[in-house]
Amino acid sequence: MTKVIVGIDLGGTNIKIGLVNDKGRITARSHLATARFADNKNKLIAAIVVAIEELLEEQGLSVKKVEGIGFGVPGLVNPEKGVVTFLPNISGWKNVALKRVMEKKIGIPTFIDNDVNLVTLGEWKFGAGKGGRNLVCMTLGTGVGSGLILNGALYRGEGFVAGELGHMPLNERGPACNCGGEACFERYVGNRYLQAKAAKIFKNKHIRLEDVFALAEQDNVRAVQFWEEAATHIGNALVGMINLLNPSRVIIGGGVSNNFKYLQPTINAVIKRRAMKVQSGMVKIVRAKLGDDAGIIGAQVLVKESIVGQKKK
Amino acid sequence: MTKVIVGIDLGGTNIKIGLVNDKGRITARSHLATARFADNKNKLIAAIVVAIEELLEEQGLSVKKVEGIGFGVPGLVNPEKGVVTFLPNISGWKNVALKRVMEKKIGIPTFIDNDVNLVTLGEWKFGAGKGGRNLVCMTLGTGVGSGLILNGALYRGEGFVAGELGHMPLNERGPACNCGGEACFERYVGNRYLQAKAAKIFKNKHIRLEDVFALAEQDNVRAVQFWEEAATHIGNALVGMINLLNPSRVIIGGGVSNNFKYLQPTINAVIKRRAMKVQSGMVKIVRAKLGDDAGIIGAQVLVKESIVGQKKK
Repeated sequence: MTKVIVGIDLGGTNIKIGLVNDKGRITARSHLATARFADNKNKLIAAIVVAIEELLEEQGLSVKKVEGIGFGVPGLVNPEKGVVTFLPNISGWKNVALKRVMEKKIGIPTFIDNDVNLVTLGEWKFGAGKGGRNLVCMTLGTGVGSGLILNGALYRGEGFVAGELGHMPLNERGPACNCGGEACFERYVGNRYLQAKAAKIFKNKHIRLEDVFALAEQDNVRAVQFWEEAATHIGNALVGMINLLNPSRVIIGGGVSNNFKYLQPTINAVIKRRAMKVQSGMVKIVRAKLGDDAGIIGAQVLVKESIVGQKKK
Repeated sequence: MTKVIVGIDLGGTNIKIGLVNDKGRITARSHLATARFADNKNKLIAAIVVAIEELLEEQGLSVKKVEGIGFGVPGLVNPEKGVVTFLPNISGWKNVALKRVMEKKIGIPTFIDNDVNLVTLGEWKFGAGKGGRNLVCMTLGTGVGSGLILNGALYRGEGFVAGELGHMPLNERGPACNCGGEACFERYVGNRYLQAKAAKIFKNKHIRLEDVFALAEQDNVRAVQFWEEAATHIGNALVGMINLLNPSRVIIGGGVSNNFKYLQPTINAVIKRRAMKVQSGMVKIVRAKLGDDAGIIGAQVLVKESIVGQKKK
């Protein structure tokens, strides 16, 4: 029997844990509510270790059958040192030597990275990015992030914070962004801004983006225009990135991408109109394939790529 | 005696040829006027071969003492196949198997790439980018281009056209650009647009950018504002790229960079104000060091990196 990998996706609401095989299939799952461990990172780590041990036991697997643990977190990390630098949405996480702690507690090689990079790795090897060498995976949610596969490897940047496509300015002047910047792409298409815009247009505080999508499908003029504008912003943001990075694919995931079929024609039209000919002619804009499992599946890729990287050294 | 490399920088006006040693020093030079070979690529290549042979003879070097030829061209290339796909400003160059032709005529391994990538390679190994692993080298001239060193290697993109920072849109709406796009960065700071703007402001068709710079140094209000606006556009364009790529350095070269000291404070202020904290805290904006020699020196790096790449395969 081949070895398995443990994938962990630490989110603001849930901690998802899965065993992932060589084909990127999740063979067993477990989860914990993040809120139970507010402000107590040691309890959180201890609970994850117990959950992993229980999951392995259920499957009749010993720790020796696990090749590695891939751990995705929603924030800043130093993947080389295995340290979580800071998690903005889970209190108590600052400069945590997560790799060292996990390895000491459970005796399995552990690798960490941020959640968007894990999603990117998962989509690259097992999802919408299969076979690609240069691609960008963008997640459209409350925040807008992206991961970059360049020259056939994850590109992390000098301080491991590359990929902030959500903070590419769309205009020289515009609304202030939480990041301290101005007119950032996220400020136009992040979920909360889209929702606030929808509430205003439809004079309904409780309207959800799914509702606006349903209205658009029924040809409601304001709803059609709403998504037309959102897709145009997305296309405009992608133009600069595509001219700069010349990727073969841009993978779009996250909540808003549920409306991908609806958004795609406008996004493609903007790219065709504004991006450079060679770049726009070779890039495909595709929907993410792995959904909520992308992070756990990406954890498998992180472990595999990290072990290969270590052997090269 | 160690081997030398022949660097060739094919420009719209001049063809510069140099012998480059292991330390990135140009030890002998030659040049030809590009206009002599308008529309006749075979004559141009033959003349380059003769010039190389003469240069080697002058220096008492046999062809065997040359490790390789690095050839930079102003346009689209396929560096893997050694083919010049298209040169927009030198007529008659379309799908030219330059590598094969050169190797057949002179018997020296030849590697080709576009001129901006050669400048980037030169600045990276021997200029303002020494020791860097993730950096961007931008040239501000008639066109605005850039080369990307990511994860310690030149990043070319899926179709070898990455680095078009000049065609990152600064705004969602704006002036039409030659590339077919709209509101591109180049459209705000490309030389001809800056010159047209200066001519209008100073009501003088013949004013040069150097003149506007001299006026600014004398505290002429309109000239100060002119460069303030240009530097703000440059800063705005860099913000998105810095958030996305998290480089350690951005190297600025090309004509406008002669005013670098004057532009730098505004560029830095814009980046500090708008870019994300981790990214802006670690990036240094520096002036290119190699001037007009960057391309020929970069040809040396191209040959060295290409030979190392071939050995790895």
